[in-house]
Amino acid sequence: MSRAVTTDSREPSEESTPIAKRILIGEALTSETLDDQLLPKKMALPIFASDALSSVAYAPQELLMILLIGGSAFLAFAPPVAAAVVALLVVVVLSYRQLIKAYPSGGGDYEVARTNLGEKAGVVVAAALLVDYVLTVAVSVASGVDNIISAIPGLDPLRVELAVGFVVLIIVVNLRGVREASQAFAIPTYVFIGSVAVMIVTGLVQWMLGAPPVASSAQYAVQAEDLTQAAVILLVLRAFSSGCSALTGVEAVSNGVPAFRKPKVRNAQTTLVLMGSIAILLFSGLTLLALVAGVHYAENPCHLIGFDCEAAPQPSLMAQVAAATFGMNSIPFFIIQAATACVLLLAANTAFNGFPLLGSVLARDGYAPKALNTRGDRLVYSNGMIILGLAAAVVLIVFQARLTTLIQLYIIGVFVSFSLGQLGMVRHWRRELRLLSKTAIAERRAAGVGLGINALGATFTIAVLVIVTVTKFTHGAWLVFLAIPVLSFLMIGVHRYYRDVEHEISMDDHVHFGSSGDLAIVLVNRLQKPVAKAVDYALAAKHEKTIAVHVAVTKEEAQQVQTDWEVHGMPVPLVVIESPYRHYAAPLAEFIRRYRDTHGSSVVTVYLPQYIVGHWWENLLHNRRARRIAQQLMLVHGVSITLVPWLLDSTELIYGRRSRPMAGDDRAGAFESPYGLVQHMRDPDD
Amino acid sequence: MSRAVTTDSREPSEESTPIAKRILIGEALTSETLDDQLLPKKMALPIFASDALSSVAYAPQELLMILLIGGSAFLAFAPPVAAAVVALLVVVVLSYRQLIKAYPSGGGDYEVARTNLGEKAGVVVAAALLVDYVLTVAVSVASGVDNIISAIPGLDPLRVELAVGFVVLIIVVNLRGVREASQAFAIPTYVFIGSVAVMIVTGLVQWMLGAPPVASSAQYAVQAEDLTQAAVILLVLRAFSSGCSALTGVEAVSNGVPAFRKPKVRNAQTTLVLMGSIAILLFSGLTLLALVAGVHYAENPCHLIGFDCEAAPQPSLMAQVAAATFGMNSIPFFIIQAATACVLLLAANTAFNGFPLLGSVLARDGYAPKALNTRGDRLVYSNGMIILGLAAAVVLIVFQARLTTLIQLYIIGVFVSFSLGQLGMVRHWRRELRLLSKTAIAERRAAGVGLGINALGATFTIAVLVIVTVTKFTHGAWLVFLAIPVLSFLMIGVHRYYRDVEHEISMDDHVHFGSSGDLAIVLVNRLQKPVAKAVDYALAAKHEKTIAVHVAVTKEEAQQVQTDWEVHGMPVPLVVIESPYRHYAAPLAEFIRRYRDTHGSSVVTVYLPQYIVGHWWENLLHNRRARRIAQQLMLVHGVSITLVPWLLDSTELIYGRRSRPMAGDDRAGAFESPYGLVQHMRDPDD
Repeated sequence: MSRAVTTDSREPSEESTPIAKRILIGEALTSETLDDQLLPKKMALPIFASDALSSVAYAPQELLMILLIGGSAFLAFAPPVAAAVVALLVVVVLSYRQLIKAYPSGGGDYEVARTNLGEKAGVVVAAALLVDYVLTVAVSVASGVDNIISAIPGLDPLRVELAVGFVVLIIVVNLRGVREASQAFAIPTYVFIGSVAVMIVTGLVQWMLGAPPVASSAQYAVQAEDLTQAAVILLVLRAFSSGCSALTGVEAVSNGVPAFRKPKVRNAQTTLVLMGSIAILLFSGLTLLALVAGVHYAENPCHLIGFDCEAAPQPSLMAQVAAATFGMNSIPFFIIQAATACVLLLAANTAFNGFPLLGSVLARDGYAPKALNTRGDRLVYSNGMIILGLAAAVVLIVFQARLTTLIQLYIIGVFVSFSLGQLGMVRHWRRELRLLSKTAIAERRAAGVGLGINALGATFTIAVLVIVTVTKFTHGAWLVFLAIPVLSFLMIGVHRYYRDVEHEISMDDHVHFGSSGDLAIVLVNRLQKPVAKAVDYALAAKHEKTIAVHVAVTKEEAQQVQTDWEVHGMPVPLVVIESPYRHYAAPLAEFIRRYRDTHGSSVVTVYLPQYIVGHWWENLLHNRRARRIAQQLMLVHGVSITLVPWLLDSTELIYGRRSRPMAGDDRAGAFESPYGLVQHMRDPDD
Repeated sequence: MSRAVTTDSREPSEESTPIAKRILIGEALTSETLDDQLLPKKMALPIFASDALSSVAYAPQELLMILLIGGSAFLAFAPPVAAAVVALLVVVVLSYRQLIKAYPSGGGDYEVARTNLGEKAGVVVAAALLVDYVLTVAVSVASGVDNIISAIPGLDPLRVELAVGFVVLIIVVNLRGVREASQAFAIPTYVFIGSVAVMIVTGLVQWMLGAPPVASSAQYAVQAEDLTQAAVILLVLRAFSSGCSALTGVEAVSNGVPAFRKPKVRNAQTTLVLMGSIAILLFSGLTLLALVAGVHYAENPCHLIGFDCEAAPQPSLMAQVAAATFGMNSIPFFIIQAATACVLLLAANTAFNGFPLLGSVLARDGYAPKALNTRGDRLVYSNGMIILGLAAAVVLIVFQARLTTLIQLYIIGVFVSFSLGQLGMVRHWRRELRLLSKTAIAERRAAGVGLGINALGATFTIAVLVIVTVTKFTHGAWLVFLAIPVLSFLMIGVHRYYRDVEHEISMDDHVHFGSSGDLAIVLVNRLQKPVAKAVDYALAAKHEKTIAVHVAVTKEEAQQVQTDWEVHGMPVPLVVIESPYRHYAAPLAEFIRRYRDTHGSSVVTVYLPQYIVGHWWENLLHNRRARRIAQQLMLVHGVSITLVPWLLDSTELIYGRRSRPMAGDDRAGAFESPYGLVQHMRDPDD
């Protein structure tokens, strides 16, 4: 009953039929091309690490800042708190190494939670991740702008405008279709790692040589709050929470495993460990150097005694350390600030890759609109990007691009997904252990180690989640606690809807064939060529009965149509229906009802001529009446609508302008098509 | 060959088939109903006069304000300048009396210019009128807000917000479908006429009794500019130009003749003369009273010596006169301010009736998108209203709702259409005179009188147009001089487009029938009920050949469809086309091409299942893939698209919620339908 036709003409042809052009690369070549696009480790590191490494730019600053609320003396807590953050980072990296091995498909925490903890946990993780992507953009951009302003203080009044401007820029860049794997993205990350490393080494060497760098803020005393003992503990925990922002972005590698070269898992694991090590070195080095240089970074700069908080913005910790080490406004100072800002904006950019990807996974599983899963449809990705960008811009405007406020919201989402992911891994290993036979000793040992690591990870991340929640809830994190359940409920609602529709339309034993009767109606407004074509097509389809119908709004028009109909000897009878209220669909539906009353039930096909135009603006000049009639008639039982296209001369432009088979194919993503990018740029209308 | 079926079941029926309900009133009754809705004179006056009479609220103020630039002494010019305005008003009213008689169809200046001076003149008049409608809204709202602020000075900081808010309010009120003829609209106009008349009489009586009213600004001296003799003349002419804003809206009656009761022409003429007389009385009375009370209204309130221009807004002339006559914050003062504000907002509201009407006339003649001429389609009027409202809001924001600036732009458009209309009338009478036989003495005399009046009108209005242009060009009127030609060119372009399309699609001797071959393709994604229905319909239509086609993006899906196809014993063969690039339309087009290569040319009908949903948000959850495939395939030669609707259960809501025949019919305007308003309010989704 079924046969397969493959369209694989491999020769590029320049003939006028534009269809062959597109399909000139068969399945085999597609896979080859795909492999070329996979990432070597040296490219994967900067791409996946910009998010994780960029957090080094703000984590030490936020950690020290919270401690400083208690006064300069509290900075003594900094080394142990930073050490705790580093320890946590080690545990989390090791935990994700296990996750990558167990779930190499790129689903990350979402997949792990869904598989092991059930639908609801998966949905909550997904909601947390979506919120997180928005905040990644907001925090990264805010911090990037902060570092730019630290180098060029004159821009301070434009803080929010700059931040929103950068978000718009990132949206535009991504909409234009810059490829994720662009080499240009690697440079700033490596410059950032290199220059900050050089700065740390230089600063520490100066210190050991007895000439430690001195930060500009070292001279300012700090207004300390009087704290109870409980408050002291809370403050230290808050500092730890803020320092934990260094962990954000670690999960990125686990979502990107499929993009690695083979052996994928091994390469991804190596990249993850490398990234973790660099993050630890930069984080602890920067924290130490800031303490050495005596950086005093205050939540409220006016609490710095001696600092004129009205006159100038407070420079970021990164800027203060760089200025202390290399000298204010020296060339290395500007290099570090530029690289920091760049890597932060890149981190924001990676969210624009992750957000639509997660959307597509959610759509595949039925938790988000199906349209998000149409791979190769560039428009869909665009929608995701615009949503993400707008949400981030709103957050930036509402919180006035204040980094410290945004950080409060940030890491809740991260640790919700961390915790559920790790919990899922614990359950995964326990099931593995149950399923493994007693004799598979090596596998059992590996699973045991995995269980141990992930149990430790789960314990740590849940503990941190509790700490973060307690210390940050009143500082704005409640917003995130509102957003995650709302999103979760929406996604579950969408899933229910799809389930119901699926149930409604799935085939069952009651489906039977045998509609009888067959009437074709050609709807006629005036007798013009498109109507003649529709009549011709209706006749070609050899319906049992074919008639033309004119809905008469004015008598003059009706008279004209009847005259024309006879003059041109049209081969089907014309029926005129009066419509005193200028409606089209309702009288037609009534006519169909009456026809069935006298002629018995029948399937009715309504032929509607439809104009196809070459310019978008031509649509403004044509009635949407045909479309509206179609929509209304589709509600009538037993009616189907046949659109008979009439290509106006202007449609020739579509063929002339495009060197590809069909309108609309330009929406294909660059990933799928060997022409990708060039094609997008050829079509300005899309 | 043709027969007529009339659907005129006159009995309202409550049966479940909802179609009959709508068509229960035949042609005859429609006309009767229409007559009931025509306007008696006492209703027509307030409806058409609010625009013309409301200009009395700002014309005297602007006239005196311009003179005051030269110092208090220049107010001596006020009586002759006001007299010139009154003389002009008389001439214009008499001219329009002629126009109403000659062109009673309601086309106004546009029709006169188009008929007598040719296409281009008509288009220019139309463009001028469109610009004018926008400015009518802006000026009326700005003046209304000005008068509200004069009564409640605390609102001054919210001037622009109030103005934009009123525009939004008017849009909403009109979108909800308030009827033009609503009686509520008559009250404020009559209250305005009555209260202002009482104020004028009271003030003048006080004056004659030797206790003239004294305005609050009478005490302030005025910083006068030093003027050359040429500048003095220019200033007087500018004052005259601003005073001419009293003439705006006079043309409204000539556009509304069809809405009058019979005898339409006589009634319209009477209303016009009545309106002109009232306008003259109010205008001259107010100007005189303002001079008596010593109102000093300055363009820049800081030029009033002694007035603290920072502390409070300058009260409008109307407010100053009312306060002087009745006492500040007295009850009559508030009545006058409220009535003035109301009548100004009503004047803005009338533009929302005129703009879409003009758009519909332009569409009928092919100068505007045809969709604007779909009478009875409420959505179309909505679009016009939203465009008008947005344009007015933009103008108000850009010019910060400053009445004086807006007035500069205003009357250019008015006098462009006045002048061309009068010129057209002159040519009309001359042709009449040529055509009349020498013996028809009475007719010749009437035509001669008409020619004289309109020649006078043309001379006056052209002279004023020149004066207005010269005195206002640099004060912002250049914007209008830019907008009118741009709009005119757009309209002429639209007209050319329609002409070309008409030529392209009109029947000629080369139209012939006889497409041969007939293939039906049912597009299958997964085998579900909607697909089964499409197959059933395709079979019912008895095509020569019917096949199902699955475009295989993944091998798993293809395998699944093939299995299901055999399991359910589908009665047509299934063809699988591979599509490695995840495209649908292109491989299908290629398949059609190949089919024709082997089977000869044939008309191809592609059956696409189409979901119909009950809630707007469900559309977000369904792919637009079918629609996109349809659009792309319609570009392929010889292909027509049949949409087979599948009504999801949720569509039952559409029937349940609506007590009318079909979705979409609620767009009918209230004018056409005996249910009109009630229906609109039942459907919250539209």
